[in-house]
Amino acid sequence: MPRPSRWSDVVEAAAQVFQQKGFAASSLEDIAAEVGMRKGSLYHYINSKEDLLFAVVSEPATRILDSLQKIAALDLPPSEKLRQAAITHAAVLDETFVYASVYLREIAGNQRFAEWASKDREYRRVLTSIVEDGVERGDFSAVIHAGTATLAFIGALNWMTHWYRPGGPLPAAVIADQICTTFLNGMIVRGGRPASSNEPARPKKKAAR
Amino acid sequence: MPRPSRWSDVVEAAAQVFQQKGFAASSLEDIAAEVGMRKGSLYHYINSKEDLLFAVVSEPATRILDSLQKIAALDLPPSEKLRQAAITHAAVLDETFVYASVYLREIAGNQRFAEWASKDREYRRVLTSIVEDGVERGDFSAVIHAGTATLAFIGALNWMTHWYRPGGPLPAAVIADQICTTFLNGMIVRGGRPASSNEPARPKKKAAR
Repeated sequence: MPRPSRWSDVVEAAAQVFQQKGFAASSLEDIAAEVGMRKGSLYHYINSKEDLLFAVVSEPATRILDSLQKIAALDLPPSEKLRQAAITHAAVLDETFVYASVYLREIAGNQRFAEWASKDREYRRVLTSIVEDGVERGDFSAVIHAGTATLAFIGALNWMTHWYRPGGPLPAAVIADQICTTFLNGMIVRGGRPASSNEPARPKKKAAR
Repeated sequence: MPRPSRWSDVVEAAAQVFQQKGFAASSLEDIAAEVGMRKGSLYHYINSKEDLLFAVVSEPATRILDSLQKIAALDLPPSEKLRQAAITHAAVLDETFVYASVYLREIAGNQRFAEWASKDREYRRVLTSIVEDGVERGDFSAVIHAGTATLAFIGALNWMTHWYRPGGPLPAAVIADQICTTFLNGMIVRGGRPASSNEPARPKKKAAR
């Protein structure tokens, strides 16, 4: 019986080691030990430690971009596209938590992979175009710079890797929905149709003091 | 003439090296070389590389917390406190850019310093209490969880270290003001008084389609 490829085990081990020690301080010895392999055997899978970093970050990068591109192509209002994008973004963070944490920690110092950087730029471009579409349609306020709002939106979601933990008290989808509601109600022109089905109209409340 | 202490040069050099290589991959030799000192001389200033990381991150951590505590104590509505907090937060990121980048990159893997972690918790606690105060006064919508909104707010601002550069096209204060306007208009109860002096009341606009 042929031994199945251990590629996914190797990538998983690399993600664990990179998350714990950071990429720069991790060695191929550490990763070999984590997966229970000799260092020499790792070279059947990779040429360098960089190959492993790229494999780790490709998982969330590819999933998050593919999902956004599908959402962008749907026939939905921009506010609903943003909500779906937020929920999908958070779902990918949740499901690939260790990988995504490595991604977000290492991208600060690493634009070394052209493909990684280009996925990152493309994600930002597609999301910005949804916001711009909302401004053009009159759904979103033009007071906010679309690029800044998009980066704030991405930042609020990505920052989840600093405080969210899978299996914690609030599910990722609920958090993403709340973050999105905060952003949407800020971006939608006052008096326009409400963006969130979660926020019923309320009577004006008198200040408590 | 006595030679002035080179402590601030040492910390500055450490910040530069940590930002470029990451803390884990940086050596005291690297830092000594950056500051133009022998490695042995560094031990007049520190006991370990950790001492330097703590010195680097203390600068933005202390400034950002002190400023927020002063803002929290002012007699201002919560929306105005949040705006001042955002602008001050961005100003500290701007003025201590390399230090703050090291802070935000390394805190992901390092809760090793009790004092650092406690400043971080305290910042979040004070900001959350401003949001909660806004909810109690009826200024902010209670639909959004105050803790989630606060973390999204902090995340949107901190994420600036990934895309903002001092001296770039938009000043940090303008970006912070825009981020804050996005958040405030989402958190303020519909029909309440407008939070932002930047957003004039607008006539109801019909959706473009």
